[in-house]
Parts: sequence; structure tokens; C-alpha cells
Amino acid sequence: MRPKRISTEESRAFVEIFDLPPTGSGILNALTFAVKDLIDVAGHKTGCGNPDWHKSHPAPSVHAVCVEQLLAAGAHCKGKTITDEMAFSLIGENHFHGTPLNPKAPDRVPGGSSSGSASAVACGIVDFALGTDTGGSVRVPAANCGIFGFRPTHGIVSVAGVNPLSPSFDTIGILASSIEVLIRAASVLLAGNIPKAKPTGNVFWIREAFSICDLEIQNALQAPAEKLRSVLGPRLKEISMREIDQENEVKDLQNWYEIYRILQRAEAESCLGGWVASHNPVFGPMIAQSFELIRNLDRSLIPSMAERRERYFQRINSFLTTADLICIPTIPSPAPLKGSFIKREGTGTGYYPRALALTSIAGIGRLPQITLPVAEADGLPVGLSLVARTNEDAFLLSTAREIAALFKL
Amino acid sequence: MRPKRISTEESRAFVEIFDLPPTGSGILNALTFAVKDLIDVAGHKTGCGNPDWHKSHPAPSVHAVCVEQLLAAGAHCKGKTITDEMAFSLIGENHFHGTPLNPKAPDRVPGGSSSGSASAVACGIVDFALGTDTGGSVRVPAANCGIFGFRPTHGIVSVAGVNPLSPSFDTIGILASSIEVLIRAASVLLAGNIPKAKPTGNVFWIREAFSICDLEIQNALQAPAEKLRSVLGPRLKEISMREIDQENEVKDLQNWYEIYRILQRAEAESCLGGWVASHNPVFGPMIAQSFELIRNLDRSLIPSMAERRERYFQRINSFLTTADLICIPTIPSPAPLKGSFIKREGTGTGYYPRALALTSIAGIGRLPQITLPVAEADGLPVGLSLVARTNEDAFLLSTAREIAALFKL
Repeated sequence: MRPKRISTEESRAFVEIFDLPPTGSGILNALTFAVKDLIDVAGHKTGCGNPDWHKSHPAPSVHAVCVEQLLAAGAHCKGKTITDEMAFSLIGENHFHGTPLNPKAPDRVPGGSSSGSASAVACGIVDFALGTDTGGSVRVPAANCGIFGFRPTHGIVSVAGVNPLSPSFDTIGILASSIEVLIRAASVLLAGNIPKAKPTGNVFWIREAFSICDLEIQNALQAPAEKLRSVLGPRLKEISMREIDQENEVKDLQNWYEIYRILQRAEAESCLGGWVASHNPVFGPMIAQSFELIRNLDRSLIPSMAERRERYFQRINSFLTTADLICIPTIPSPAPLKGSFIKREGTGTGYYPRALALTSIAGIGRLPQITLPVAEADGLPVGLSLVARTNEDAFLLSTAREIAALFKL
Repeated sequence: MRPKRISTEESRAFVEIFDLPPTGSGILNALTFAVKDLIDVAGHKTGCGNPDWHKSHPAPSVHAVCVEQLLAAGAHCKGKTITDEMAFSLIGENHFHGTPLNPKAPDRVPGGSSSGSASAVACGIVDFALGTDTGGSVRVPAANCGIFGFRPTHGIVSVAGVNPLSPSFDTIGILASSIEVLIRAASVLLAGNIPKAKPTGNVFWIREAFSICDLEIQNALQAPAEKLRSVLGPRLKEISMREIDQENEVKDLQNWYEIYRILQRAEAESCLGGWVASHNPVFGPMIAQSFELIRNLDRSLIPSMAERRERYFQRINSFLTTADLICIPTIPSPAPLKGSFIKREGTGTGYYPRALALTSIAGIGRLPQITLPVAEADGLPVGLSLVARTNEDAFLLSTAREIAALFKL
């Protein structure tokens, strides 16, 4: 259901407001959307959340392919939304542009990096919004703000006209408060129909993905688990991630996170390091730390991490049939309090390593994922995620529609 | 077999010669390679074949991920090789840097855009070379120069540190004169082993792919076809592309080419249009025409072409089992005479539309492809290509090894 509308001023979600009419007519007629300011809209500078980037780059002459697709299908574009600088954060506090409102938890962050897109949707200002998701930048803010968020199979939705962060993980995603709207927009970007759901095979409940979460998240997801079990019966199977990755020395998901951390930083240096070195831009303190971590990466780790990535990719896609799903929490904790992040943790049990451990499953597996706002913990939104096999986006979305109906979302 | 060595001066393949020692030791020990000048080598500017690009961009601080992988596996990097400007040609005549030698046909072009990489390998200067392949830029020059050329499944080999042309089609490929060397280098980039060949299922000989070629190509490939038939028996199946794409109104492969043409241009404008508009660079006449075509693209065609692309992608990957291959000619004609290209044809029966019709099958299907130098037409190299299902790169390469042995390559 579309939430009660909060004004654009109060949302603080936008860097620029305009009204771009559709270029065609189709299944998105009469729907409105916003575009994360990492994605090109012709004639409007793509600021990537950083004033020095904005200054040093010309306005694009054409829309990104994904924007072109949405406008041609009948949607109205209402503006560009705040992104964390260079899309490089899961928090959503932009040092220069501020923190978009999380209307479900005004003292909490919206999550990033698609912070403005999540806020604009959760505030009821637009029907859906485009985000980008490298390591969770659609899924995390969607979960924090209590809306749906979809990350497609890597490589299916064109990233042309979207500023790269880490090409092996970069995707274009969608945020919406209605599953029907999300599915319509997704069918346009995926350039295919989303048929009725085919019968679901097994739904694998990954034990470690739940056990690394705060207790309040684990507790909040117990009732949804029971509801799913009542429908799926023995097809809801609790398993260990070790049955998939076959790493018997490991206890949690840090091995997944580790691959992501190394490869993402290695690629980010290639994509952004040249500009950083030549333009010496001013970053907010958190993002400055991130670029410090990138510069200090031990690049001799790249080959072994690439090997592990491909091994896990093969294993998870061999493990899953085309009718199976994985079920995990989207976030390990409720949205953090505003201003509580002053330092990025590297590894361990902090927020970042656990959040990225969860999001890196789809990243490393190149798998599609959708987060559903099925629960709350002390009034704070909690997302439950379904993940499907590579290229099974249509199956994932059609099954998510049925599960959303089950939960009356 | 490694060809007789021709000097680097005579090859005219390089824009820069240096000796970068390996950073580790592994299965590429004692092998040398060259890097297309679209791919980052730390401390050396990535010129992308255009002097204005070279001038307006800083040198990268780190190697592209693919270069990092090769150095860590023991290979020596010997320099950067000429690319067609912005990787935007299949010909290999760079207006500014000249035309690398095609040692198999000195009056012919090497093919592009990985022209210098093909030449450096065919001249015996390096054991293998990195290229990029968006619409054939590894496969075409490899076929023209009588060597092996491999394009991996889209998205598997990291493109970080490689200048984008059209992200939905961009890949990193390998050129080599020895299949064993190619497989070793590929196993490093694919970050996985290439096991012994599993039994081959069907090999689909696509009728239209042969019939659009010059008669001399068709004739040159008859003996190889007979040899394959003698080994494969009824598993070598001649079929029409209509059994895959189900487009009963179409007679040739122009429907595949058309998708590629529109989407590639749409994406190229997003990737390069901003720089072209803001820097007004000087291009050679052929590339200037290409950018003119890009600017004049009717972008309202994007959504329908994206839909057709995903439909064909699904169909070809449903049609092929994990043990099947497609067999097509790599090029529709022998390498063109030098200086014979002064104008790009849009559609029809010219060289470009037919070459791109052949290469766009793997592009649209996101499929891996390898070209093998199995034949000659009047002394000019002719390549035969094998194409496998998405992610079946290891199977493709191990089968190519057996077929290369059959042809004593």
C-alpha cells in the first residue's frame, strides 16, 4: 500500500526536483519514479553525492538505458535522489547533502547508498525509485525503511549511464512500497514478462545468516518463519551455509564477506582511484576512510579471492535448482541511530561486516534478491530476503508476490 | 606452435614497450603477454587509441584486475598494444598509430579493435595477449591473423580497469597462437581449472551463419566440416537459426545484428558521449563516422531491442544443454585489404553487418566463444568458431583443445 505522503521538503530525499514526462505509454502509465543521483538523466548532472564530482563532470547528453526504458513504458520521472558519496556506504548520511528521512524511524538512518530513493518511496512521494546495488545499496535501505527492494541477476539490467563502483558486483535495483508496482517496473528493466508463480521447490533457511543477526532481528523473524513453514511444510529447509560453500573450517559468513571486501575494493580503486588521485576531492569523513582502505588494499589477495568467488558462484548455482530459493534476513540489526557511525569496522562482529556478509551472498553468486518488509522489531522495520538462482528473476518476483499476499503486504 | 618471430618494429603492434616482471609464480611462469591499450597497467597511461583521450586522462595507479591476475600467475608483461580508437572498429587501421602487421597477409588489415594484440601474438613477439571483445574485437582479429581468440561468458572476467564501450557486451578476451597457452591464461582469468573435456553433446552447425559468408569462406570450411563430421557423426547437426530464435519472418541473421547495433550504440553514447561532447576530440574519419551514427541513434528503439535481446538470450540458453556447442564461421570474408574501408555500412550485405551478425550471437546470448585457425582461403586465414552455453567456458575450452588436436593446430 502507498504510504501517507510526506512532503519532499520534509523527506530531504532529493538533490534535484523536476518533472520529466514519459516518452511512451505502457504498463507504467501514471506511475512516478525517482532516480538515484548515480544514474544519468539527460541534461542533469550526475553528482554521485559529491560536490567535487559534480563540478568536474559534464551533464550527460542522454538518459541511462534503464531510465530510457522506464520513460518509454509510461512512467514520470520526478527528480534525482541523494546517494551516499560514490555509492560507497550502507548508512545513508551524506556529509554534503544530509540524511534523507526514514519515515518509519525518524531518529534512524535510512540506509545507503540509495538513501534518497528509499526515503522518497517510503515517504510516498513517488511510486518507485531506481537505485544501484553493489553490496546492498538497494536491499539495505529498503529494509531499513520498511519497503520492498529488488536486486536483479548481475549483468541483466544495463548499467550504461550509471557510474561504476565495482563492475563485478554493480547492479541496478528498484525500491517500491507496493510489490505490484515493483514487479511492473522490474518487468520493464528485465525486458520480459513476470508470469504467474510456478511451484516453489525448496526454500533454504540459512542458519548462519540468522545467527549472526542481533537477537531482536532473530526474534522479529520468528513469526514470519512460522507462517512460511505453515505454507511450505517440509519444503522450508533449515540448512548450514557449509552445505553450499563446503568450507568446513568456517563458522559464520565471514568467508563470503571477505571475498566481497577484497574484490570490491580492488575494483573501486580501478573505477575511481584515477579521479581521486588527479582531482584530490573533498570527501566526508566516513567516505574518506573508505578510500583510505581502498588505497591500502593488499592487491596480491586478488587472484585467490577471484578463485574463491568463482568457486562459490559455481557451488551456489549448482546447489539451487531453478525452482529453489534461499531465505535470509536482509539486515543484521535495525537501522542504526543517526550519527552513530563515525568509523568503519574492517572485520569482526560490527554492523558492516555482518551486513555485508548477508548481502554478499547474492553479490558473489550473481543472484537476484528481493527484500520484503515482513516484520518489525520494537517498531523498527525488519526485512526478510528471498534469493533465487542466477537468471531466475521472474520466478523470484512472482514467488515474492505470493509471499507478500500471504503476509498481506 | 609459436610462429617465427618478427621484430617489434616490423610488427608495429605496440604503443609502448616495457618489461613488467611477474608479481608471483604459477602456471604462467616464463610466458610473456601484451595488453591492449584499453586496459590499465599501473603507471602507464591508457590511451584507448586516441591522442586526445591519452592527453585528457591520468595514468592509472593500479593494474586492471585481469592484468593483476596474470602477473600473479607468473607471466611477464611486455607492453601495451595498439587498439582501434575507443575499441570502436573491426578493422584495425588506427588513424594515429597506424596498422599493426598481419603477418599472414601483409597487404591485409589485422582486424580490430584488438589489432596490436593479434599482431603481437601472430608475429611471435609474445605468447599471448589481452584484448577486449564487445562485438568481435578479439575474435575477428584472431581469425584474420590465423591465431586462437577467446571471448568468455559475459560478466565472468572482471572489467575493472578496462575502459567501457558498451557494458552489456564488453568482455576481456585472450589471443594466442597455442591452444595450450590460451587455456592456461584463460584458467587464470576465469579463476578456475579447465578440466579434461567431458563428452560433447550436439554440435549445431548454423546454416545461416555459413550462407551469409563469402563463397571462399564457405569453401574453405568444407574440409574442416567433413573432418568434424567424421568424428562427431550424427551429433554434428545442421540446423537453421530459426529453430533457436523462432523468428519465422527472417531469412538470415540480421535480426541478431540489429539488436546488437542498437543496444551497443545506445550504451556507447552513455559511456563515451559525455567525454566526446565536452572535449571535442579529433577522431580518424572511420571512428568519427561511428560517433556520428551513435549521436543519431533513435533511442526510442532501446526498449524493444532490450526485450528482443532478453528473449533471444533465454531461447539460446534453453536450446543449448551444458554439453552442446554451436559452430559458426568467425568472419564472413578473409581480412579486408588495407585502406579498403572508407565508410561504415549500416545494414545489408557489406562486411560490417555480416561480421557483426556472426559475432552478435555470443554477444546477445552472453555466451563464451573461441575461434580456431582451422583453414585458409587462397592463403588467407579463416577461423571456425565454437560457442557454448553461458558459464560453460571450461567445457568450451577443453573441447576446443581436443578439436585443435584433431586439426593438428
